[in-house]
Amino acid sequence: MSHAITTDLAAYASAARFSDLPDAVRREGVRSIFNILGCIIGGARHPGVDVVDNALQGMTGEGKATLIGRGRGTDTLHAALINCLASSIYSFDDTHEQAVVHPSGPVFAAALALAETRPVSGEALLTAFILGVELECRLCKALTVPPAKGSMAWSGTGITGGIGAAVAAGHLLGLNMTTMRTAMGIALSQAAGFRAMHGSLCTPLMPAQASQTGLRAALLAQGGFTSSAAALEGRYGFLSVFCEQPDLDALTGGLGERFEILRNTYKPYPCGIVIHPIIDACLHLRSKHGLDATRIASVEILASPGAMALCNNRDPRDELQAHVSLHHWTAVCFIRGTARIQDMDTETAVKDPALMAFQNRVNATLDPTRGADSAKVIVTMTDGRRYTCEIEHGIGSASRPMTDQELEVKFSDMSIPVLGGNRTRALIDQCWGIEKLSNAGDLARAAR
Amino acid sequence: MSHAITTDLAAYASAARFSDLPDAVRREGVRSIFNILGCIIGGARHPGVDVVDNALQGMTGEGKATLIGRGRGTDTLHAALINCLASSIYSFDDTHEQAVVHPSGPVFAAALALAETRPVSGEALLTAFILGVELECRLCKALTVPPAKGSMAWSGTGITGGIGAAVAAGHLLGLNMTTMRTAMGIALSQAAGFRAMHGSLCTPLMPAQASQTGLRAALLAQGGFTSSAAALEGRYGFLSVFCEQPDLDALTGGLGERFEILRNTYKPYPCGIVIHPIIDACLHLRSKHGLDATRIASVEILASPGAMALCNNRDPRDELQAHVSLHHWTAVCFIRGTARIQDMDTETAVKDPALMAFQNRVNATLDPTRGADSAKVIVTMTDGRRYTCEIEHGIGSASRPMTDQELEVKFSDMSIPVLGGNRTRALIDQCWGIEKLSNAGDLARAAR
Repeated sequence: MSHAITTDLAAYASAARFSDLPDAVRREGVRSIFNILGCIIGGARHPGVDVVDNALQGMTGEGKATLIGRGRGTDTLHAALINCLASSIYSFDDTHEQAVVHPSGPVFAAALALAETRPVSGEALLTAFILGVELECRLCKALTVPPAKGSMAWSGTGITGGIGAAVAAGHLLGLNMTTMRTAMGIALSQAAGFRAMHGSLCTPLMPAQASQTGLRAALLAQGGFTSSAAALEGRYGFLSVFCEQPDLDALTGGLGERFEILRNTYKPYPCGIVIHPIIDACLHLRSKHGLDATRIASVEILASPGAMALCNNRDPRDELQAHVSLHHWTAVCFIRGTARIQDMDTETAVKDPALMAFQNRVNATLDPTRGADSAKVIVTMTDGRRYTCEIEHGIGSASRPMTDQELEVKFSDMSIPVLGGNRTRALIDQCWGIEKLSNAGDLARAAR
Repeated sequence: MSHAITTDLAAYASAARFSDLPDAVRREGVRSIFNILGCIIGGARHPGVDVVDNALQGMTGEGKATLIGRGRGTDTLHAALINCLASSIYSFDDTHEQAVVHPSGPVFAAALALAETRPVSGEALLTAFILGVELECRLCKALTVPPAKGSMAWSGTGITGGIGAAVAAGHLLGLNMTTMRTAMGIALSQAAGFRAMHGSLCTPLMPAQASQTGLRAALLAQGGFTSSAAALEGRYGFLSVFCEQPDLDALTGGLGERFEILRNTYKPYPCGIVIHPIIDACLHLRSKHGLDATRIASVEILASPGAMALCNNRDPRDELQAHVSLHHWTAVCFIRGTARIQDMDTETAVKDPALMAFQNRVNATLDPTRGADSAKVIVTMTDGRRYTCEIEHGIGSASRPMTDQELEVKFSDMSIPVLGGNRTRALIDQCWGIEKLSNAGDLARAAR
């Protein structure tokens, strides 16, 4: 790999402007920000966020950055860590349609925290955010989407979130090509995260760590720190360690023409995205046929390779394991007819005897040809009747994107318990109008 | 890998006590601490440390932890980052004889910072330090030393320093097996660093980042955070992502009986350790034969695979590249007859025309069978005379360890310019007597 990939990407990321971004790209950028801000608010008071914030007491600075939904100011690095952690702690954030990466959390948390410490317009924040997401998604695609030959073992967001945060922060700091390349290199050199942590709090900590180290990388680069000029393509570099055979065209092809944010998707359900088509099918069957869960003998699921690899977990013990248990959500759908945050509460849902018992009637089988947004569910009743539903593309997938209105419902469900109805309504309007904001930090302050 | 490796290691690390450590192990622990404390002081005022400390201004807490040699207190996490960065910024730290890991920096910086915030005896600090180093070195051996089949591309200290810091900090916090295992898991999930960064400030930032995240992992575990119970051996776990075929016996065999710190080595020269035998040979030839550098026509070096892979860099442009340039140090040896920190100063050494010109007369050739602490140097004079020196084991290698007195000289060379002669002398005595200290934090305060 002799081509100067890192340099080319840094040149693009430092030079691109708001006026270079097509309308559809700006629009999806706003939708992504809207969705992730709601997720930050929704996760802000999660006990796992409390643990981190409390454990680090006394180790943060006083500052203008907002801990969203927690009613306190702090320094930018801590805000990036905590807000990103909150954004992903319910696995309710966004997902790139092809690469298994949740792009917005690390990028937005870093950019917003920085935007509170200096005058940054809504346009500037949106531009920086879109560019950060662009590089993050391109890199994750290059590692994992065929023809790339990568490994399922790495956490895509963990290892590519840092470059996204660094690019967004670097853009807001006005870094030139050279310092942007340095920022990217520093962030890449700290890329981390693997999937053995699924079902533990380390999973949302990975994007949080990426956000914080990416932001720090931009600050260090601005201050004169150094890194390799070939962090991606160099010998013993990022691409060589994280991928057997990267797809370089996915990384550098059509820069400024093809935009990955157009492939971003938002989740209607707060769990592993590969479970979503299963939930769609289960809710559809229950509603259409008025099924009584107590009369269901068994549920057969033909699941995608992704669902089987990540979520084939019967009998989760707590909320985080329930996140990634297709058995849990299948039980929730048939018994409760819902799939909300409160449906994975450890005490009232995960340990609900009815839900636990139902899981033993759920069996998942690998369907190797099935896409990640697809599932087939076959219900057999105790009287022998059978019902089948096949979902080709789940709600929230790229083929069936969530509407703005659906996003507002999701936002409100998460925000109203934290900020109340009036502030939530005002924040929704402010967020849709982000391009018009003269001071983008207002978004964070309104969500304090 | 069904064996509960992470659990076994956590059980050992949480239960071991000072009385379990043989005298020789304690002694080498003291020597390792002595050496790394000197390195922290020596690097404390490096411009690269200034960059990080300045860039993070306002993003740290007020606290009792000392920024060694910088005359300021800060919070424990920032102290771990900055002190570890200082310890490795001149590549003057320690190295395990087999695994390419520099164990003490991440572990000591984390443990010392924590020891300043609560009452910790010298015995307790020494015990925690030795255990942290033990797990870090075992893990790095398991990844890289045959029969393991690992990759040269990862930074050994970057990816294993975190578990070392987490274990040391966790031991000081009194974590039990379960929380220690959690701390290890969190730290492992954030392991990062690859070697493309050689010659840039990202190289010393990797251990610094490991120290900080390892310390943070212990604090989070204490606070109730969660991680996988099988972070090392689990599916998609640490061992699977960082190594093709790990050597599990190196990781878990003889716990409490075999101690890796006994294989720790200290550097007489502030550069990549694989260059050291070359320096020994060059200094020996110059001194023994009274060689005049201006009459040297060429220098042939038969170098180890490690030296060729990491340090075959002609014409470095700055101090950090000079660190890992065998051509630079060969020129320094023959022209100056020394190999000190000031011999890699960018302005007065790296850009010294005489040194730059001499490098063109240096050629290195791979000797595939040669060990990393070995080199052969052949000097040809302009009049045709030839001189040869072969070093089987360089000074500072495990076979020719530095004496306590040599360590004191190294310490004094680094400390006197920062702390002055009297404080340096007092600190040396205090450090050798660490086992007797009732409050180990005194060490840091004495080096403020």
